[in-house]
Amino acid sequence: MTQDLQKLVKENYDIVFKNIDLLNQAFTHSSYVNEHRHLELSDNERLEFLGDAVLELIISEYLYQHNQDLPEGKLTKLRATIVCEESLASFAKECQFDQCIRLGKGEENSKGRERASLLCDLFESFLGALYLDQGAEAARTFINQVVIPKIEAGAFSHEMDHKTALQEILQKNGDVSIVYDLINEEGPAHERIFSVEVSADGSVLGMGSGKSKKGAEQKAAQVALFNLSRRRMEHN
Amino acid sequence: MTQDLQKLVKENYDIVFKNIDLLNQAFTHSSYVNEHRHLELSDNERLEFLGDAVLELIISEYLYQHNQDLPEGKLTKLRATIVCEESLASFAKECQFDQCIRLGKGEENSKGRERASLLCDLFESFLGALYLDQGAEAARTFINQVVIPKIEAGAFSHEMDHKTALQEILQKNGDVSIVYDLINEEGPAHERIFSVEVSADGSVLGMGSGKSKKGAEQKAAQVALFNLSRRRMEHN
Repeated sequence: MTQDLQKLVKENYDIVFKNIDLLNQAFTHSSYVNEHRHLELSDNERLEFLGDAVLELIISEYLYQHNQDLPEGKLTKLRATIVCEESLASFAKECQFDQCIRLGKGEENSKGRERASLLCDLFESFLGALYLDQGAEAARTFINQVVIPKIEAGAFSHEMDHKTALQEILQKNGDVSIVYDLINEEGPAHERIFSVEVSADGSVLGMGSGKSKKGAEQKAAQVALFNLSRRRMEHN
Repeated sequence: MTQDLQKLVKENYDIVFKNIDLLNQAFTHSSYVNEHRHLELSDNERLEFLGDAVLELIISEYLYQHNQDLPEGKLTKLRATIVCEESLASFAKECQFDQCIRLGKGEENSKGRERASLLCDLFESFLGALYLDQGAEAARTFINQVVIPKIEAGAFSHEMDHKTALQEILQKNGDVSIVYDLINEEGPAHERIFSVEVSADGSVLGMGSGKSKKGAEQKAAQVALFNLSRRRMEHN
């Protein structure tokens, strides 16, 4: 297994562990340790404890830097949809980590290799081992390869509703009237482009265009959020 | 306020912010922003989101490195007692951060300056700002000054029960008989020293001495844990 595992992380992520034991430990489930007690192995649970915190920080920092317009509550929600059992398990599968973990026979027979909780822990323990072996930057590089593109492609974007975000920011300090006005539409019926302006208590905050009114509104809200955050930064 | 705050972190922690705005933002409560809307300030909530993850990683790494004998479940419990509202609030007070936060009048009048949740958030937002301004090492140095000495002095040691930890490790893979034998006691009655040996299924794992039998047992368990973790590392 060791050879395949080393090859996998080298070929796919250009990662070469200095301490191979750490890599192996990350891929050793407690059920395997229990069935091979004479080997006196360590399972991956302590690495998972560490990897969980490593992932949390990398994702938090990314979200903080790339969503200047989102308030804390939205950031927390978004982080929770990314750092959750279901998505981490799918990342582990995508990395083919499920093919490499050492399981006990009982665990294997009960389809442990496909279980989300086990795969989620595996993803975190790998990250913990990588962090210990090569530091924070290496862990970040790996996450930039595996997780961030999914975020940028909008895999978690049901949380990225700009209209809701704008509303939350504007109404945080009390009631504000937010209005979306259709200011223009042009082009033939099947390629119509709508333009919308958003204003709060009468002052225009942003304008956006799109192939639907809804899309144009979202775009306008996004522009408004951008303008607001720039204004906040200038005045801070 | 700014001057005092800069002076405080410089004199007590030798920290000089490059971006003073970040430091000020960390000490700006949303109630202050709400009462001074013309200033268009940002409150400390997004920094708190980031600081929370920074703290989690620094503490997790410390616990991982300094408790080789503790299984994941124990590490998680221990981390939860350190990274909790109550202790973070007391760290914020100890740092005199409560004297520096900008609050709205309503918040001030309702004794917000003494409220644990507000102080906990403040401690995290400061850490978030420090991390953004000066990086992970600076954040770690600050935590090493403020939090780690408390851990080392045993402030959270009700979780550091070595006998329980030893039992959990030994019985993880099935039932094991753990016995503590009093092998010696010496000295006058008021300064009696007890020595205890701990063994699992008949083989001795460690020996410890103390002024009480209970203390000697804890010491013996700690030694056993140390011996076991060394053995695991050699075999891994």
